[in-house]
Amino acid sequence: MALIVQKYGGTSVANPERIRNVARRVARYKALGHQVVVVVSAMSGETNRLISLAKEIMQDPDPRELDVMVSTGEQVTIGMTALALMELGIKAKSYTGTQVKILTDDAFTKARILDIDEHNLKKDLDDGYVCVVAGFQGVDANGNITTLGRGGSDTTGVALAAALKADECQIYTDVDGVYTTDPRVVPEARRLDKITFEEMLELASQGSKVLQIRSVEFAGKYKVKLRVLSSFEEEGDGTLITFEENEENMEEPIISGIAFNRDEAKITVTGVPDKPGIAYQILGPVADANIDVDMIIQNVGADGTTDFTFTVHKNEMNKALSILRDKVQGHIQAREISGDDKIAKVSVVGVGMRSHVGIASQMFRTLAEEGINIQMISTSEIKIAVVIEEKYMELAVRVLHKAFGLENA
Amino acid sequence: MALIVQKYGGTSVANPERIRNVARRVARYKALGHQVVVVVSAMSGETNRLISLAKEIMQDPDPRELDVMVSTGEQVTIGMTALALMELGIKAKSYTGTQVKILTDDAFTKARILDIDEHNLKKDLDDGYVCVVAGFQGVDANGNITTLGRGGSDTTGVALAAALKADECQIYTDVDGVYTTDPRVVPEARRLDKITFEEMLELASQGSKVLQIRSVEFAGKYKVKLRVLSSFEEEGDGTLITFEENEENMEEPIISGIAFNRDEAKITVTGVPDKPGIAYQILGPVADANIDVDMIIQNVGADGTTDFTFTVHKNEMNKALSILRDKVQGHIQAREISGDDKIAKVSVVGVGMRSHVGIASQMFRTLAEEGINIQMISTSEIKIAVVIEEKYMELAVRVLHKAFGLENA
Repeated sequence: MALIVQKYGGTSVANPERIRNVARRVARYKALGHQVVVVVSAMSGETNRLISLAKEIMQDPDPRELDVMVSTGEQVTIGMTALALMELGIKAKSYTGTQVKILTDDAFTKARILDIDEHNLKKDLDDGYVCVVAGFQGVDANGNITTLGRGGSDTTGVALAAALKADECQIYTDVDGVYTTDPRVVPEARRLDKITFEEMLELASQGSKVLQIRSVEFAGKYKVKLRVLSSFEEEGDGTLITFEENEENMEEPIISGIAFNRDEAKITVTGVPDKPGIAYQILGPVADANIDVDMIIQNVGADGTTDFTFTVHKNEMNKALSILRDKVQGHIQAREISGDDKIAKVSVVGVGMRSHVGIASQMFRTLAEEGINIQMISTSEIKIAVVIEEKYMELAVRVLHKAFGLENA
Repeated sequence: MALIVQKYGGTSVANPERIRNVARRVARYKALGHQVVVVVSAMSGETNRLISLAKEIMQDPDPRELDVMVSTGEQVTIGMTALALMELGIKAKSYTGTQVKILTDDAFTKARILDIDEHNLKKDLDDGYVCVVAGFQGVDANGNITTLGRGGSDTTGVALAAALKADECQIYTDVDGVYTTDPRVVPEARRLDKITFEEMLELASQGSKVLQIRSVEFAGKYKVKLRVLSSFEEEGDGTLITFEENEENMEEPIISGIAFNRDEAKITVTGVPDKPGIAYQILGPVADANIDVDMIIQNVGADGTTDFTFTVHKNEMNKALSILRDKVQGHIQAREISGDDKIAKVSVVGVGMRSHVGIASQMFRTLAEEGINIQMISTSEIKIAVVIEEKYMELAVRVLHKAFGLENA
């Protein structure tokens, strides 16, 4: 007997028929003697419908009230899923974030989980219930309803798996696993049976849409065994995300996948005096406004000044620009502050990279051969990311996928 | 400065534009220096949509899960209403039943309020907030979400007014007050400026749809000043529901109104041995199944047996019949158990009735003159109710309205 957390996304619970499918899958796991916790998202389209309703009233809705409204999406799905299980004769009980309770901070619309009280769930599991938990939502210390931000249902699933010490957290989605890259861009893309957490983390953070990055971080931190599966296929083991690279397989490919992301914009601050503390003076006000920053690059110029470049989500570029112009530019005497949202980020990811030189040069040569100019470069032990002009993104992904031989298993 | 609770029903918050209207009305009260608590229902149609979703999964949905789903209707409206107030520059904060907390028993889908914690609301009111509370819902001692049953938002409003010791509880609806009877049946029906609690109670319980009976009981019990108003008219004082009959006005009419109700069905148990405890043996199992019973009549027959008749909601007639046939008939040796859902109840109501004889005989004569047969009679100090064949209902209401001179102020 194992304890399994299964998370189903919005397309997997898009209508009553699909919810019945979810219930049948859960029933098969119950029949094998497993304990099952089900985490569900809102029915697809529902979150957007609720956000639109809020925006009909207030263009930039108050985040506390927005969370009150948006959290109802998952609340409807947990009720329906519990009913579908009961209809199959399975004992089931739904839980909102408040009822669990999934304690978060009070950063409405992008809250972070602080603690999960697993006692009620444990008791119900031991009494034979399937617990159906609303993803994406929690409650702060004052009883306010919070949401974790888009994709937060994955995080809920992994955090519950960690709190319950579950044997496996299964993320059901509309794809059947993690691919070497997006098959819509590269038809030859191949499903990976296994991937390490570090690789997955880089792939997720670099824009692979299969799993949300915070859920992968959580899984890594708490050593939760994570598996990505399709909710539309009866069979298939999906992709297992492992803690360790496979030591047995010496022929493991160097590169696991190519990730890409066109959601970011680049902000450049030029002519900044090259003094200690300058990075903080620039990024502090941006962080205070709750704007997430991804890549950060600083180059020393010849004249004792430096150029400082970073990327943010496209939606937040204008907000970041006006913060910098209003609060930072005069203060630090920067020459110019500019933004560019016609960029894309492309990354090659693989644990094999650690022990292989030449990956970077092969990547840069491949792009150069296609005449693609590189605007920014950022590297980690298992990743090389470049920022290029957005219009070259698909081309870059295709030629890199081929250059690193990813189409061959 | 007064503390006012305003309750807005589903048609008053049916869409963003109407919610903005609600906010503007609240703003006018705030501008006069009043503290305001707003109680809102789900947008009209929303509760039925959610019930349909549940029934798509399970024909007779588990009541706990149904409440989880249905309660989201009001949760969306509180968010929207709070946003609409903020958009007008008014500090506002929404509350679910759990957040208030409105403690109920655990009779899902028809829970009763046990206690209201008014501390958070009081603090926010004192801090200048308008508190927007979800009607119709509460939370049981174990943290389960409950709903109060249809029309329960009125009860929420009155219960909050009682807990907060509000100066007035205003119930906004799509009619501009309480009428002598339904104007759709009798065009000459007249709006009452005032009505006593007892009369209102009888009118509500007898089927007048303006206010839900439990809210009137609550208001009477806690001496909450209740006013029914239209949310679609800027002006008008609606109908005030008073604690005392108006002693000053000697010419007060004897009858205040005619109520009617076609939602009930009649169940008759014939040939029951006339022994002590028989009423309990019949009604006990019905009550245990949470079926509400309205009128109850017992007649002694000539042969030492008795006939026992009572009414229940039409939707519950078949359930009640099968309970009686399965669990009661053999046990008490009843000759026959039969149901009739083609009935209507018509009542004349008025505190003036106490001191006037002849109301009953006038009522019966009026119906007899139209050839309408009376199947059951039930009386209270201020009400006479009769059950007649359903098809005669409108006719009965019209002739009684005329016979008691209700068209003249």
